[in-house]
Amino acid sequence: MKRTSRDIRRGNRNELLRYVIARSPVSRQELAAATGLSLATVANLVGELLERGVLVEVGFEDSDGGRPRGLVAMRADGGALIGVDVAETYIHVELFDLALRLLARAEEPLSESENRPEQVVGHITSGVRAVLDQAGVDIRLVLGAGVSMPGQVEREGGLSVFAPNWNWRDVPLRDLLAGALDFPVYLDNPLMACTVAELWFGAARGCDDVIVVNLGTGVGAGIAVGGSLYRGFSNTAGEWGHTTLVLDGRVCHCGAMGCVEAYVGAPGILNTLREVDPDSAILQLDQATAIGALADALAKEDAAALETVKRTARYLGVAVGNLVNLLNPQVIVLSSWVAARLGTALLSGMREAVAEHALPRPLEHTRIMLCPIATNAVSLGAATFALEGALAPGKA
Amino acid sequence: MKRTSRDIRRGNRNELLRYVIARSPVSRQELAAATGLSLATVANLVGELLERGVLVEVGFEDSDGGRPRGLVAMRADGGALIGVDVAETYIHVELFDLALRLLARAEEPLSESENRPEQVVGHITSGVRAVLDQAGVDIRLVLGAGVSMPGQVEREGGLSVFAPNWNWRDVPLRDLLAGALDFPVYLDNPLMACTVAELWFGAARGCDDVIVVNLGTGVGAGIAVGGSLYRGFSNTAGEWGHTTLVLDGRVCHCGAMGCVEAYVGAPGILNTLREVDPDSAILQLDQATAIGALADALAKEDAAALETVKRTARYLGVAVGNLVNLLNPQVIVLSSWVAARLGTALLSGMREAVAEHALPRPLEHTRIMLCPIATNAVSLGAATFALEGALAPGKA
Ligand SMILES: [Zn+2]
Ligand SMILES: [Zn+2]
Repeated sequence: MKRTSRDIRRGNRNELLRYVIARSPVSRQELAAATGLSLATVANLVGELLERGVLVEVGFEDSDGGRPRGLVAMRADGGALIGVDVAETYIHVELFDLALRLLARAEEPLSESENRPEQVVGHITSGVRAVLDQAGVDIRLVLGAGVSMPGQVEREGGLSVFAPNWNWRDVPLRDLLAGALDFPVYLDNPLMACTVAELWFGAARGCDDVIVVNLGTGVGAGIAVGGSLYRGFSNTAGEWGHTTLVLDGRVCHCGAMGCVEAYVGAPGILNTLREVDPDSAILQLDQATAIGALADALAKEDAAALETVKRTARYLGVAVGNLVNLLNPQVIVLSSWVAARLGTALLSGMREAVAEHALPRPLEHTRIMLCPIATNAVSLGAATFALEGALAPGKA
Repeated sequence: MKRTSRDIRRGNRNELLRYVIARSPVSRQELAAATGLSLATVANLVGELLERGVLVEVGFEDSDGGRPRGLVAMRADGGALIGVDVAETYIHVELFDLALRLLARAEEPLSESENRPEQVVGHITSGVRAVLDQAGVDIRLVLGAGVSMPGQVEREGGLSVFAPNWNWRDVPLRDLLAGALDFPVYLDNPLMACTVAELWFGAARGCDDVIVVNLGTGVGAGIAVGGSLYRGFSNTAGEWGHTTLVLDGRVCHCGAMGCVEAYVGAPGILNTLREVDPDSAILQLDQATAIGALADALAKEDAAALETVKRTARYLGVAVGNLVNLLNPQVIVLSSWVAARLGTALLSGMREAVAEHALPRPLEHTRIMLCPIATNAVSLGAATFALEGALAPGKA
């Protein structure tokens, strides 16, 4: 892959925007120091972003007896961005200003019978209308929407190539949405979205080599290299959930045996609970409620819950140790809803297994932590894709 | 990581040199088409390399009725490069011209008692003298030597941070060599060296996302992202050999249990043979001879050899499937001496396990093949580091 000067300019601009978003208002000098870019490059990029109405001049700061320095900030009202998290049981829509501050959110539940493409498109558009109404934002201000769709996605063509739970194949979701919405739509998958959210706003800000471990019904590992998303050759990198942890172990829904997901995905955790206590009442609940009930039982020091989380933490620790050894990352973030519920217990329980299975040299440099993003990281990352898309070359 | 214009220039120059080395003599137009760089960028880089004596003008080619096009080639006699593969039982030294064509090679065996730093330095310098004598090359022509050292290496400082087999810690190998040799020395590890060799000269030329699976006494997976080596946060990426394949499985020499290396490293393969046939005469031989004898027995369709390779191929297939799922590479290359001996049998035997454990989507795009480099890939890669070093910014 030849990096062109256009690629480098886009990379530099994203780097710069991340700092502006984090530290507004900020001087060009501070941006140059923070990003490592030359002052000339920063001035040039800032000039372009001022011209496009993304940044705005907001005054001056003193510089210890020198000339006052001009300050810039995101022009929050310069436009709006939408991030959509399409999940199996709901569609979550969030509206942001250009500084990626949350303006409104809406959630549309999806019943099991509502998974035809036109139904999903209908729920997305009504969610979009709801957030615009709530915030009183004119639809013409929306620069774009990022849509995270589970399964395999072809970004360039805007296709949902394969959504296993709904058995979608090559659904032209972007074009279907374009017919209903009056702004550009950027399709991607939740693993990429939540990894970008960590890079821009979360635990990975300013980091080079990052792994975001997504713990939900399915599990995966979003990878960033040199501060940029690593997608692999056909945009399917990160299927850590289907790497083998236990040769000839539990059957996984992918068809293979012993996958990480069969142990640390939500159904896998409940299978462990079943091994520990086949009569547990928690096993009667639906998956999401069950994980919540497990967290509650854990807080009450219920023996079966303690043992289930202990075993799960060990599985997770070994599988995370694999990531440390193979990829030598700077930071590993545990994200998604199972991490939100059980993350603290898993994090402390897994440290021993990580230390046993990871080599000392790569491990000594790795921070392992919970996702610090308080809102929906997938919607936030999806909106970031929309910002990147709106600023892409050829969209002046 | 901010990519500076200096980084991009270096990346472009390496990309261009790879094509010149592969296709000399070549026109600027062909280089532009092959690399995706603009003709202006190519002309500028070629001008710099001509000035530095790395390239040379070698005539013209017709261009279908247009103006004849100037051709350039590597200036093979513009200098010489050395690649050193320091292994546990030998030191292998190769001398190359600037087109990375092999001029001479020498191997110095290391006995078990010869592993003090000054002994290793002594063997390297006598190997260097031997190849220069053989080829009749003046030492003053040598632009540099790349030295591949097993274990953990700190490149910037030229330190062997930790060599487990010799129990070296923080040995300043580069400085010790600099006292004995009159040219710059670039230290790295064998996994990085053989991955670079594949990128420049082997199966990965022109590829973006690449994994080089090294099968020797130890095993590892060199990773390239976007056509460049991925090193991780502290230069230890690629420790695939110590990812877990069998939870609570065989004890690995790293201290953990169930590591990939304990199954597909040479001693692991011999342990499998021991499980299959505890009385096998092969088990009496030293490791390298034993793997050769196993290959011979396999050729004679010996039942124990067939079963051993079948089981090994399955272990390898599952562990390679993990790489496919996690990293979605374009090509996976099996390299090093165990692959040279058993690779064909392993490759055909592993395909079933790979297909069972890798997801169809990433797998459909992955080529899996044996290393096509006929000579020592580690020495070749090490010499490539010396070429990169000689061309690095600040060395005009
Ligand atoms: Zn699976
Ligand atoms: Zn190990």
